[in-house]
Order: sequence, then C-alpha cells, then structure tokens
Amino acid sequence: MIIVMKEGASKSEIERVMQLLQSKGLGAHLSEGAEMTVIGVIGQKEKVRELGVEGLPGVEKVVSVSYPFKLASRPFHPDNTTIEILGHVVGGDEPTIIAGPCSVESKEGLIEIAQEIKASGAHMLRGGAFKPRSSPYSFQGLGEEGLKYLAAAREATGLAVVSEVMEPGLVDLVADYVDVLQIGARNMQNYALLKAVGKTDRPVLLKRGFSNTIEEWLMSAEYILSEGNPNVILCERGIRTFETYTRNTLDLNAIPVVQHLSHLPVLVDPSHGIGHSRYVTAMARAGVAAGAAGVIVEVHKKPEEAWSDGNQTITLEEFDRLAKQVRDTHRLVREYQLEASRS
Amino acid sequence: MIIVMKEGASKSEIERVMQLLQSKGLGAHLSEGAEMTVIGVIGQKEKVRELGVEGLPGVEKVVSVSYPFKLASRPFHPDNTTIEILGHVVGGDEPTIIAGPCSVESKEGLIEIAQEIKASGAHMLRGGAFKPRSSPYSFQGLGEEGLKYLAAAREATGLAVVSEVMEPGLVDLVADYVDVLQIGARNMQNYALLKAVGKTDRPVLLKRGFSNTIEEWLMSAEYILSEGNPNVILCERGIRTFETYTRNTLDLNAIPVVQHLSHLPVLVDPSHGIGHSRYVTAMARAGVAAGAAGVIVEVHKKPEEAWSDGNQTITLEEFDRLAKQVRDTHRLVREYQLEASRS
Amino acid sequence: MIIVMKEGASKSEIERVMQLLQSKGLGAHLSEGAEMTVIGVIGQKEKVRELGVEGLPGVEKVVSVSYPFKLASRPFHPDNTTIEILGHVVGGDEPTIIAGPCSVESKEGLIEIAQEIKASGAHMLRGGAFKPRSSPYSFQGLGEEGLKYLAAAREATGLAVVSEVMEPGLVDLVADYVDVLQIGARNMQNYALLKAVGKTDRPVLLKRGFSNTIEEWLMSAEYILSEGNPNVILCERGIRTFETYTRNTLDLNAIPVVQHLSHLPVLVDPSHGIGHSRYVTAMARAGVAAGAAGVIVEVHKKPEEAWSDGNQTITLEEFDRLAKQVRDTHRLVREYQLEASRS
Amino acid sequence: MIIVMKEGASKSEIERVMQLLQSKGLGAHLSEGAEMTVIGVIGQKEKVRELGVEGLPGVEKVVSVSYPFKLASRPFHPDNTTIEILGHVVGGDEPTIIAGPCSVESKEGLIEIAQEIKASGAHMLRGGAFKPRSSPYSFQGLGEEGLKYLAAAREATGLAVVSEVMEPGLVDLVADYVDVLQIGARNMQNYALLKAVGKTDRPVLLKRGFSNTIEEWLMSAEYILSEGNPNVILCERGIRTFETYTRNTLDLNAIPVVQHLSHLPVLVDPSHGIGHSRYVTAMARAGVAAGAAGVIVEVHKKPEEAWSDGNQTITLEEFDRLAKQVRDTHRLVREYQLEASRS
Repeated sequence: MIIVMKEGASKSEIERVMQLLQSKGLGAHLSEGAEMTVIGVIGQKEKVRELGVEGLPGVEKVVSVSYPFKLASRPFHPDNTTIEILGHVVGGDEPTIIAGPCSVESKEGLIEIAQEIKASGAHMLRGGAFKPRSSPYSFQGLGEEGLKYLAAAREATGLAVVSEVMEPGLVDLVADYVDVLQIGARNMQNYALLKAVGKTDRPVLLKRGFSNTIEEWLMSAEYILSEGNPNVILCERGIRTFETYTRNTLDLNAIPVVQHLSHLPVLVDPSHGIGHSRYVTAMARAGVAAGAAGVIVEVHKKPEEAWSDGNQTITLEEFDRLAKQVRDTHRLVREYQLEASRS
Repeated sequence: MIIVMKEGASKSEIERVMQLLQSKGLGAHLSEGAEMTVIGVIGQKEKVRELGVEGLPGVEKVVSVSYPFKLASRPFHPDNTTIEILGHVVGGDEPTIIAGPCSVESKEGLIEIAQEIKASGAHMLRGGAFKPRSSPYSFQGLGEEGLKYLAAAREATGLAVVSEVMEPGLVDLVADYVDVLQIGARNMQNYALLKAVGKTDRPVLLKRGFSNTIEEWLMSAEYILSEGNPNVILCERGIRTFETYTRNTLDLNAIPVVQHLSHLPVLVDPSHGIGHSRYVTAMARAGVAAGAAGVIVEVHKKPEEAWSDGNQTITLEEFDRLAKQVRDTHRLVREYQLEASRS
Repeated sequence: MIIVMKEGASKSEIERVMQLLQSKGLGAHLSEGAEMTVIGVIGQKEKVRELGVEGLPGVEKVVSVSYPFKLASRPFHPDNTTIEILGHVVGGDEPTIIAGPCSVESKEGLIEIAQEIKASGAHMLRGGAFKPRSSPYSFQGLGEEGLKYLAAAREATGLAVVSEVMEPGLVDLVADYVDVLQIGARNMQNYALLKAVGKTDRPVLLKRGFSNTIEEWLMSAEYILSEGNPNVILCERGIRTFETYTRNTLDLNAIPVVQHLSHLPVLVDPSHGIGHSRYVTAMARAGVAAGAAGVIVEVHKKPEEAWSDGNQTITLEEFDRLAKQVRDTHRLVREYQLEASRS
Repeated sequence: MIIVMKEGASKSEIERVMQLLQSKGLGAHLSEGAEMTVIGVIGQKEKVRELGVEGLPGVEKVVSVSYPFKLASRPFHPDNTTIEILGHVVGGDEPTIIAGPCSVESKEGLIEIAQEIKASGAHMLRGGAFKPRSSPYSFQGLGEEGLKYLAAAREATGLAVVSEVMEPGLVDLVADYVDVLQIGARNMQNYALLKAVGKTDRPVLLKRGFSNTIEEWLMSAEYILSEGNPNVILCERGIRTFETYTRNTLDLNAIPVVQHLSHLPVLVDPSHGIGHSRYVTAMARAGVAAGAAGVIVEVHKKPEEAWSDGNQTITLEEFDRLAKQVRDTHRLVREYQLEASRS
C-alpha cells in the first residue's frame, strides 16, 4: 500500500502517519520528492488493506498495490489447475462444452435435450432447478423435482450435470444430485454460500458477478479454496456497462487476465453475456480464441417457448454448429499455447 | 411489451409472432408503419416479460415498457409509507439520522459512541456484527457477541439499533437483538434472504446493490413486501461507475426517481457512497436536499484506528456538524414539499 | 509512479528497470518486502507518466499516484477563483443561475424567456445556436442568426449570454456575440478547441464529458489555463452509467471532490444530468447542497413544443420555484462554509 | 416511439397527447390495456425522436424503438461494404492487419518498423503525427514532419499509411499525406470534424468513443456517409467500465452486433482495448473470432522506450506471431461464414 501525502504536508503530519504504521507493526518506507512525498507500507496484506489513514491531516490518498488473494494466485500454484468430472478434464486438451435449458421444465424434454447435445459433443448438461428471478412473481424453478430430472438425464446419457444453488441451507440437497454446483452472478459475494460450497467435495462453477472486478472474483474463489475445496471453475458471463443494445457486455478481456493472475480454469457464458441468440455463436468462438477453457450455453428445442431466457437461447441445430466451431477454435489456440510454452 | 419487427419482415413472419402471442392468451396489437412494424403486447406483466420471441424470424428486438413491481409502486399505495421505530417516524417530519461504527468492536466503545451520537441528535445506532468482507482473511465481525453489545447500547441510550444479516439461517438470531434488519448491497438479490426477512415483523433497511438498477432495487423490495412485511426502508449507498477517485458514485438521481415510482421511504449512505471521510458531510446534505428521508453514516472516535472502513468514517465532532446540517436542509425541503402538496 | 514487480522477480529484472529509470534521469526508490518489491519513481510528472515499463520481464503493474494538472490544482492557487461577468460574480456569495432554451428558436420567444427568467433571478441566458446533434438529420441550430438573437436578448435584459462553440474555426465568431463560451460534453477532449478558447479573453464554461474522470476534466481545464485564459467555470452535467431510467447520472460526488482538488468554480446542469423535467428541481437543490456555485437549466414556455430536449426542459413557473430553492439552499451552505473557514 | 401513460391517466390527458402528435403530422396509435395505456407514434424518425411530451400530465415515459441511422444500416445496403486501399481489400477474404508505433518518432525508425511489419504480413502502417494527449504538457506529436515520415515509409515499402486527424482545419493537410484518415475515440462526436472528413475522398477509420453506444457510433458513421464519403471503416477500441485492471474493456460484443445492424467493415484495436502488451495477442485473436475484418495494433522495436503508450505496445517478434494467429483464426471464421451463407 502506498500513502500519498498532500503537497505541503508538514513534517509532523508525516511523522504522525509513520508512527501509526509502526504502532501496528507495519514497515514504512518514506520517499520524499520535490513534488510529493509517498510512504510505502509493507507487511501482512490484510492488515495493510484495513488501515484507515486517509482522514489524517496531510494525507491526500491511499493506493493499493498488492493483490489480496493467495490460494487462487498463479505464484502460489504455477501450473494450470485441471479438474476431472465424469471422465472429462476441465482445463485439459479438449474444450469443455456445457449446454442445456435455462430452467428445467419436463423430464422427457430434458432427457431429449441431453441426448441431442451429447450427440453434438457436449460434456455436461446445465439446467436451473432453483432459479434466481428478479421478480417474486416469476417462475422460480421446479426445485428438488428439477434436480431429479437432471439426475435422470445423467442416468440416460452419462453427461455430468450442473445446477445452481442459491442458499447455504440447500447446498447439501443440491450436491446430492449434481456433479457441479453453480454459484450464480448475483450470489458471487454471498459469503455464507461460498463457505458452504467450499466445505463440499463438489467442483464449483463460480460465475463472475455482473459488476464485480476481476480481483473481487478471485477473492470469491479464495473463499471457496480457503475452505478446502480446490475445484473452482471460473465463468465469465458478462458485466454491466452503459451499452444497452446487448443484455450484458461479455468481458473477454477478463480471460487472459485471469489466466495471468490465477491457475484456475475459466469458461465463458455467451448466452447471458450478450443476451441475444443471434450473436451467441460468434461470442462462444471469441471466448475460446481469447483463451477460455470452454463454454456454457443455453439451448432449447423451441427457444420461443422456453419458460425463461428464451431470447438468448439457441436451437439444437445452432448448438451443433457452435460446438464444432468451439472445438476448431480451441484446437488452434491450444497449438499456439503449446508453441509458446516450448519457446 | 413492444415487439419491433425488422424492416422488410414478411407477412408470414408477423403472423407467426401474432399466433404465438395469442396461443399464450396475450393480447397483441399490430401497428404497421411505412418504416417499421411494431406489435404491442398486453396482458399479465410477468407473463409478457417471460416471452422469448426475439429469435423468431423477422423479429428485430423486444422492448419492455411496464414496471414489474406492484406492492412497491406508487399507484398501489399513493401516500408515502411511514414507519415508526422506538418512537421515531421514518419518512415523517424529522429526518432519520443513523450513525455508528462500521464494525462493532468493544462494548464500552460502542456505548460511548451511542451516547455521543444521541447527544448530537441521532435516532438509531448502526454497527456490523456479521460483516461481508471481500477477503476471507479479513475481520468477519464479532458475531452474536456484537449483537449483544448493540442491545446493551440500546439499553443504555434508548436508541434503536440496526445491523446487517447475511444469511437466511441467521435472520431469527439477528432479529432477536436488533430493531432494524439491514440487507447489504452485496445481498440485494439474495432472494432466499429477502424472503426470510420478509417473514419477520422487523423493519428492513434494504441497501441498493452497487450495480443494480432502480427497477431491480424496487423488485427486491417487492420480494420482502410480497412475504407480508410492509416495513421496507430503501437506502441508496453508491453505484459502481468508471470514476475511480471516489469509492462509489452516490446516485442521488435515484432519490427523486424512487419517490416518484414508489411510496417507500429512502435514506442515503454517504459514507459508502463517496468513500472518503472528507466529503461525507457535503453528500449527506445533498442527499437530503434531493429529497431523502434521512442518512446513515459511519462514525468512530478515532477513524484511523477503526477495524474496518476507516477511510470513510467521520469523527464524532464531524458527525455533530453533519447532523445539524442535515436537519436544517431537511427543514427547507420539507417546506417546499408542503407548499407543492398544497398547490 | 509506483512500479510493482512480480512475486519472484529476479535481481537482474529489478536491476534492468532501475537502470532504465536512471537512464531517463528519474529518481528510483527500491522497497523490497517479504511478499513484493515496489519501485517508487520520482521526477517530472509528465516524464514519469510516459514510461512504458510494463512489458519488461518481472514487472507486474504500474500504478500512478500523482495528479498531472498544475494550474488547475488547489495547491497552485489556494483561494477559490471567482469570475465576474456583467456584474455577477461566479463563485461568489450568490449562486449563479443560468437558464434558457436548449436551442435558440425565435428572437421574440428568446427575449420573452430572458425577461421572465430575469424576473425570477437568473444571471445569464443560455441558448444553443450551434447544436451538437447525434443525428446529421436533426435540427443543427440557427447558427450565427441564433447568436444575433442572443445578443438582442442581452440588449433587452442586461443578462449575460452563454452559448456553445463546437469548432476552432468558429471560436472568434461566437466570442463576438457571447459573454461565456461553452464547451459541450462531447468536446471536452477536443484539444484543438480547448486551445482555441484558451487564447480568447472570454470566460469558458467547461462541461464534463459524460464518461470522463474528474482527473481528465481538470486536465482539459489545464489545456485552457495553460493557453493564458484563467477564467474557467466547470460544469457537471451527468455521467454515463448502467442506469437507464435517468438519461445520465448527475454525479454530485464530483462537486466536493473538484473543490478539494481545484480552485475553479463548479456549476451543475440538472437538466442534462437527470434528463427528465420532473426531477430537475430536486437535483438543482442537491447540487447546491453538495457545494456547487450554481446551476444551469433548460427552460421553455412550452417544453413539449421545444425544438430539442423537450423532455428535460422545465416551464417558466417551475423555474421560478427552482431559482428560489437554489438561493435558499445556497445561503444555508454558504453559512456552513463560512463557519468552517472561521474554525 | 412509444409513449407510456401513467396508470390512472385520465381520458383528457390521453387526448391532449394524441392532439399534440396529430398537430405535428405524426400518426398516433392508441392501445388501452387493463394495466396501462400506450401510444405508438409513427412518422419521420427524426421528427418522432425530437418530441418532448414527457413533461405532459399523465405521461409516465417515452421509449424509442427505431434506429436513427439510414445510410449505415444493413437494410439500406444488404451486402457487406468492401474498401480497396493500395491493392488490399478491407472487408474481403483476407483479414486487414495494421500496425505501427503509437507516435511517429524518427524517419529511419519508422521505415525500419514498416519493413518489419510488412515482412510479417501487415497491409498498412499506423503512426500518430498529431496526438490527442490528455495533458497539455505531454508530447503532442511531430505534426507535418511526422506525416512526411509516414509518406516516406509508404514510398519505401508500398504499405498504405493511416494517421489521425484532430481538427477540421487540418483535414486537407493530413489527407495529402495519408491513405486512411483516422478519427480517434475522443473525437467520435466531433461533428465538424466528421463532416470535414466526409467531404474528402479518403477512407476513414472511425474509432468508437470509449463511452459511446453502438447506436451513437453508427450515427457518427452516418455523418460521414451523408456528406458523400462511402468508405467508412469502423474500429472497436475498448469502452470504459468499472473494471480497472484493464485500461479499457475491448467490447467484442459490438462486432457481431455492428455486422447485424450495418454493412460497414469493422476492425478491433486490442492495444488500446486492453491496454497491456501481454494480453494483446489473445484479444486480437478473439476479435477476429468474433467476426472482425482485421486488427490495428501498436508495435515498437523497444516498447519500454516508446515516446507514448509503451505499456500496451508489443515487440516486432510478438507482432509476427500475432499476425499469423490472426490469419489462421480469420480463415476459420471465413469458412463458417461461407457455409452459413450457402445454407
């Protein structure tokens, strides 16, 4: 942390800041320049970030320079993390392809979708049983019944299943049925929930909150990792910006950044990211070209009749093309990565 | 909802959309212009908003025109809602003033702060016992012990106490100790939590999520109201923008907008809103001038030694001035509002 | 500027950065901690900010800590700048009140508005003669004819007149007719234009770009000041955020921040800021309560028939009330400021 | 345009709105539902968008449904626009690759870079002679001298050259030297400049403003097209969001959207878009995978010694790899597009 003093801060003001730091057991390093004086603070990251010195006389501003995450950081674990789920390796040589309806609707319909996406090369089936809806009057999901349908679809196809869990009290129930626990964007900073999934042995798909920085996202991963669960899969699903044409702004910049800062695998969700079915395939390709380990997309037999999110859902035919294009693009990128690592 | 067809959409494409709407029992109203064709959809709000017609051939875009909240809306309850808490009326003739430390630290310290802020005119004491921290390694609050200190401070001063609850499983515990349950910004769309506080008889202070629209905020209020708890106090606490000088951007535009759309009282939190102690008083005044029913601010005897949020915490002396300025400004605005309602 | 090295950066990587800095004549200050190494760079601000060291091996990131503006900064000119225009002092004891139609339409209509707003206490008349319109097919303003009407309205009422100039080649023409040159939000970083108005002796009303940081805004003021024109009036007019209910988000946080960092007077424009006439008065009050030196608002006899911006334009009756409320609120704030400066 | 009336709006309020519309010669279409009444307005796009009815009694809000651009729109020109520049076709079968230093520095250095990038497959050389700098004290470019160096580099290599023009008065000068006129992000809504380049016969590279919507971007293209210059190349270069790790957020969502709405070719600028050299190649690939017609990147022999933007500039070796990866990715996408057009 760097403390920037005001131009014209007095010796005694500088002294007071230095003393406060030392009294907290933190190292303080004074640099006096012609135009400004800065104090570098060194010590335990958390302690340093807690300091409230900005209101002291003579202090202009406080600038944070270190990252607060550890277990999620690349220096802590230099190699990429890979996670095996029902035989498929997330973060491995093949891109991970997850697809399914926004909400689980009927058992037969779900199994049919599962069979179709499997034929197109999907590795996992997604489907919401507990749905976070901005309106209390909207369909809230089939609940445990929906989880049973997901389990039945796994039975029928061998696909792993992914579903969202929204509250700590339901983590065990959902974990009984699914292979991957999803934390939705709205709950990315629901710390009680993060701790609860961190205590299970299920891989966790952690979506980025739609207004959370990359640092906050990795801190939420840190919550899960610090509870003992090493299997966190990150998922970029679009951030909120001033642009209104698209539902969200899928932030592909986050992909190479996260791979630089962290060892965790990262997927993209172009369906929520751009929010209109006609653009989903282009963004899926772009996500993988940016370096993502795979995609998660919303698919339905008749998107216009889906119980939720129909506007961003693609058809099974579109999915078949998308899956092929994702594989081709991933193969290309994988080659470049291998070349780079050899050089 | 309005469905905008592409320029050049064919008769049969328009027909297909009309038929889908009618098959769902929704009224459809066709307007054909020289340059474009639009279809107005009328019916149950929730049903209309669920429709996924955007992927159909010939459809250009779908525009939502209605508000999805009901119980929180002004037409549903034309008069302002007022909420009495230990003798003080939120939304009444006097501005509501809530103050206290970010985190509850010690019992004696808390009682001392409570006595001081009461002398300056505060109506309620705030203090975090369960703290949402972006780092798992940061101080997470004293928990139930902190709640006991809050209750002791109420005992000693008669001030009502406000504290945050972060998970459904703890709602009953927190409600046993406090007068007002706070929902923090990060949990504004934690629907399980909203439902849980909606089932209690405690007033709820609902902070706006830092990237949530006004509409989403009122929808979260709707979750609480629809469970039977009518006592929701809204609180604007800053949104996330591109500006980095301030911690957040306190969105005072939301104050008159919320008062137009809803009957619920709304406070401002300038401490989190702007994030630097030196600007808190100016923003508290501005919030009340915009029409807010009061303020909630972070106060500490020695902000630089606070266990959290020291940079945005003001001293007791600064609070005394802030409280006076808030009362003066509120008196002025109240007069204008009375004049307006008489005319 | 602070250069943060990667965890595990080698001695030779650190050495290389130090050498590069020294070869550029910059002071470098090394702080090696257990968890990270940072290098503080001291020297001419501009030189330091130009450095491109981030791509060097071992460098994690570069953090800027100093402000790049000088003439606009508070330390350079500790007292508030005041600017006298036709007898009224901007930044003085009375709030500055500027009003008028979005576009200049007719001579008679303009003079009538000028007389009415003068009676309500306005100090200046605003009106667009050259209009920046996002569509080439929209009304682009009356041009020089409009400037003549503004001059006629000044003649008739004694009000100073403010109008926007959009290109360097027209600065002299506009300056011949008006008392204050306005730089619109879209042109805040049109540097050729900033230099051109900096060469005149007319006060400049510099609107904040709708996505410019406070620092960039003050840098644009610096462009004008550095050409020799000391009379810059800042104007906050709303920034672009994710919120769509309001046209922009009037950023009142910027008011106290700008007053802390700079000596220049700052106004608010609630009409563009919130974009709906029904909320303009509340935001005008809030702006002055936050510490603004005054307001600029759009007024029309019949807003629904205005040639542009009708939705955010208030009537003459609403303006009369607004002006009174702005004066009352300003009086209150002025007292607090005087008290504070005495203590 | 849709006018949404308040719940409970009276017959006479609705009548008044209808009359105002009819008096302006606009078609009005009334839809009365149980919960709300909406009025659809049909007529000339510009006229409809100018209306200021929102302040009328009984009006809740006004929603725009049509796009205001014509010449830039896909329905106006269904086929993709292609632009031939010195033998290379922008928007054709090969991806367009433009590279060069942020600022033109020396003649020899520039020619050397031009030779190297040509060998790696670039089609054009970029370089700033007139530089938009946020500080008046920063290096502002070599001016006409820089243009001469660009012309010399074209002479030496046959590469077309691209450079930014910042004011209407310099358009002719810059057009004398360069093959493509660049409009920078800060000038995207500098309408006088747009009109001036629209009057030349030089292709224009129009960068998206960092906070401009896709609609505003296409409207700025419309300004150029409506002056008679059909050769506009769009360039996405990153938007401003809350994320601070990256300099900007390269918005790849804009690529497929722009291709849907418009016939103009679109490039991406990953250098400004993400702002750190280590991520530029990944984002270049992702841009082309999203469907961009090519890339423009900053390249320097020694980025750490560049006179500006060193942190986001890649080396010549990195550029060589980037160019290859862009070509490979483009080939893949081109195939998918051809397949799609055949089906």
